[in-house]
Amino acid sequence: MSKVSRIELTPVAFADPPLLNVVGVHEPFALRTIVQVHTDNGNVGLGETYADDAHLARLRAVADVLPGLDVFDVNGLRRLVIDVLAKDGSAQVGGMLNLQDPADVVLSPFEVALLDIQGKELGRPVADLLGGAVRESVPFSAYLFYKWAAHPGGAEDSWGAALDPDGIVDQARSMVDHYGFTAIKLKGGVFEPAAEVEAVRALAAAFPEHKLRIDPNCAWTPLTSVRVAKELTGVIEYLEDPTPGIAGMAEVAAQTEIPLATNMCVIAFAHLKPSVLADAVQVVLSDHHYWGGLRRSQLLAGICDTFGMGLSMHSNSHLGISLAAMTQLAAATPNLTYACDTHYPWKTEDLIKPGVLEFVDGSVRVPTTPGLGVELDLDALGRLHEQYLSSGIRKRDDTTYMRTIQPDFTPNTARW
Amino acid sequence: MSKVSRIELTPVAFADPPLLNVVGVHEPFALRTIVQVHTDNGNVGLGETYADDAHLARLRAVADVLPGLDVFDVNGLRRLVIDVLAKDGSAQVGGMLNLQDPADVVLSPFEVALLDIQGKELGRPVADLLGGAVRESVPFSAYLFYKWAAHPGGAEDSWGAALDPDGIVDQARSMVDHYGFTAIKLKGGVFEPAAEVEAVRALAAAFPEHKLRIDPNCAWTPLTSVRVAKELTGVIEYLEDPTPGIAGMAEVAAQTEIPLATNMCVIAFAHLKPSVLADAVQVVLSDHHYWGGLRRSQLLAGICDTFGMGLSMHSNSHLGISLAAMTQLAAATPNLTYACDTHYPWKTEDLIKPGVLEFVDGSVRVPTTPGLGVELDLDALGRLHEQYLSSGIRKRDDTTYMRTIQPDFTPNTARW
Repeated sequence: MSKVSRIELTPVAFADPPLLNVVGVHEPFALRTIVQVHTDNGNVGLGETYADDAHLARLRAVADVLPGLDVFDVNGLRRLVIDVLAKDGSAQVGGMLNLQDPADVVLSPFEVALLDIQGKELGRPVADLLGGAVRESVPFSAYLFYKWAAHPGGAEDSWGAALDPDGIVDQARSMVDHYGFTAIKLKGGVFEPAAEVEAVRALAAAFPEHKLRIDPNCAWTPLTSVRVAKELTGVIEYLEDPTPGIAGMAEVAAQTEIPLATNMCVIAFAHLKPSVLADAVQVVLSDHHYWGGLRRSQLLAGICDTFGMGLSMHSNSHLGISLAAMTQLAAATPNLTYACDTHYPWKTEDLIKPGVLEFVDGSVRVPTTPGLGVELDLDALGRLHEQYLSSGIRKRDDTTYMRTIQPDFTPNTARW
Repeated sequence: MSKVSRIELTPVAFADPPLLNVVGVHEPFALRTIVQVHTDNGNVGLGETYADDAHLARLRAVADVLPGLDVFDVNGLRRLVIDVLAKDGSAQVGGMLNLQDPADVVLSPFEVALLDIQGKELGRPVADLLGGAVRESVPFSAYLFYKWAAHPGGAEDSWGAALDPDGIVDQARSMVDHYGFTAIKLKGGVFEPAAEVEAVRALAAAFPEHKLRIDPNCAWTPLTSVRVAKELTGVIEYLEDPTPGIAGMAEVAAQTEIPLATNMCVIAFAHLKPSVLADAVQVVLSDHHYWGGLRRSQLLAGICDTFGMGLSMHSNSHLGISLAAMTQLAAATPNLTYACDTHYPWKTEDLIKPGVLEFVDGSVRVPTTPGLGVELDLDALGRLHEQYLSSGIRKRDDTTYMRTIQPDFTPNTARW
């Protein structure tokens, strides 16, 4: 009956390329918080989450009350999180549309760390605690971005620029050659729809056997979305977040055969009922970082199965602990039938000991060692923490960074 | 990494009083199948389920393919069940309304047995595998029945007859005095609605502090249901299955403030979406015996939470293994806020070693020993199996039994 003895929260920063999106461009460093949950019998469980200042403050408030918690008491953990957030008023935004549930966001890394500990105590991979792996390896997708060759003032990265269909096809070829992905996702919302449709068509011509997707992050109106959907019918497997809001998505969904996917209008349990009633989305992109950890992501999976929605997986810039958690979760989720998103190929540094999470034929083999299956490299953790301190970044803000380069930039949400 | 080595399936029969319901009367014996899952390292996990011949044949077919299964591979178990049932065609009825999903019904006792083993291997109660107990004891309700004093030709039982409001109040008093229940459910559908409303009013007068419910098992038309609901507003906490079908329940729900509960029109995952779309029920009575075991019952619980429905728990005549499983599940389900149904006080014999599952103040203390927390009494198992063999009953059939006594009996479904 081991119990939590103490928590270490370590914000880290890792180099990130200048990836373009609807709200701007990725900053030179992406932030994460590494969570280490220590137990009274000497175990350590790992979690990884966002590191914006406000989130970090909530993590710290929760960490303060966790010592003494039984490592199997996930229900107790959730109650503590809700109680702590209620005290600072943060939990009250949870039920509103277009906001993630802060309780589930804060819960996630601690829950993952507890499952890591449970697996270690049991000598079982986390997938076994989630019902058992239904696949030995988890397929991921190539996640393409329009991008500059370099951050302003920085050196050119190995990927080079991608600002037109040729650049996107070249990027896809590098990624497919290197990782073996069999699905390709283009992050759009950067250029006008015709240019992005042309890029998707170029991908389809160059990779006729690959599953394709485009995600303009709500850059389009419903009318434009319907027009693009008509143009891409038979070309893409799903269309991700063409337009904002459940009502807008429902309007588009009623006029296309292409499944609409989302990680923007259904991002908390409170959004599921309105979405089901409106028949707004056909595929939910789960993400354990904001759906409350692995068990609650399994609840989401079961809801998708029950209500006839497909299930895929969303990603933000992340490190190896998150990739391990995503892989364990996906392994134990039978109806996760789409290749999962991951930003993993874009990062150039990590803080787990290497050799575990390799992409082979586009898939990551599920670790079968106890827990998540990854070990923290404490030297690397220290380096990336120093980088966090020196970076000066305390909150992801792609728009402000973009404006340092292009002062008149405004986000492209529903622009076209 | 222990694996299933062999399965024992033992049909048993236990004495059951002449409890009246919408389709007839309980036979002198109720049937259950006791499942023992043995592992290659000498552990045994327990499960309990129905024992109708058709179900028993399916259990046997599944038991044949389970040796070699990893005891944590619940996903693999479900796949095997689906595969076996697909071969005999039984699984195909799963998606139809008003039918339980046979895969989930067959899965259940094996899943419970695997969780029992997992808990024993880990040294943890099953509740810990389900996220941790949120309550130390689980409240149950007094489950009242109209009944005869004795089976025809048999000796009078200790409860005596209950065929009018006085008889029902007397029965309630015995049950509340003996077990301490704080909620009371009347099984109706036996007499015309006015008589049953009178019984509920008599209960309300005699037990003003108790939560009350009535369950006529769909004996009423929607019109009658609305009328009864008006009469019982402020008297009962929910109205269970007044009328058949999702459409009928929705019609009633639209015309009453009383939450409608069901274990008849929503009894499989396929029924949830139509029910939510019609806003047909406000409380789902879960039952791990047909919702696919404890983990899938937790999925149901999460769905109820997500879609704004309440959660209670249904019971059929059962023995101690089921009571242990119900208690572990309820303990780890935060939104199970109603007292659970149980037939347990009606049985006069059991096959678990006594002393674990006692009712105190209407609640059962959650066992904290490893696994389900109950041990099989092999002598009692043998006795009840002999009773099964000699009883001649191979399928629950309250109607045919009723007709041996009252030849013109027809079920009361939507009669009034």
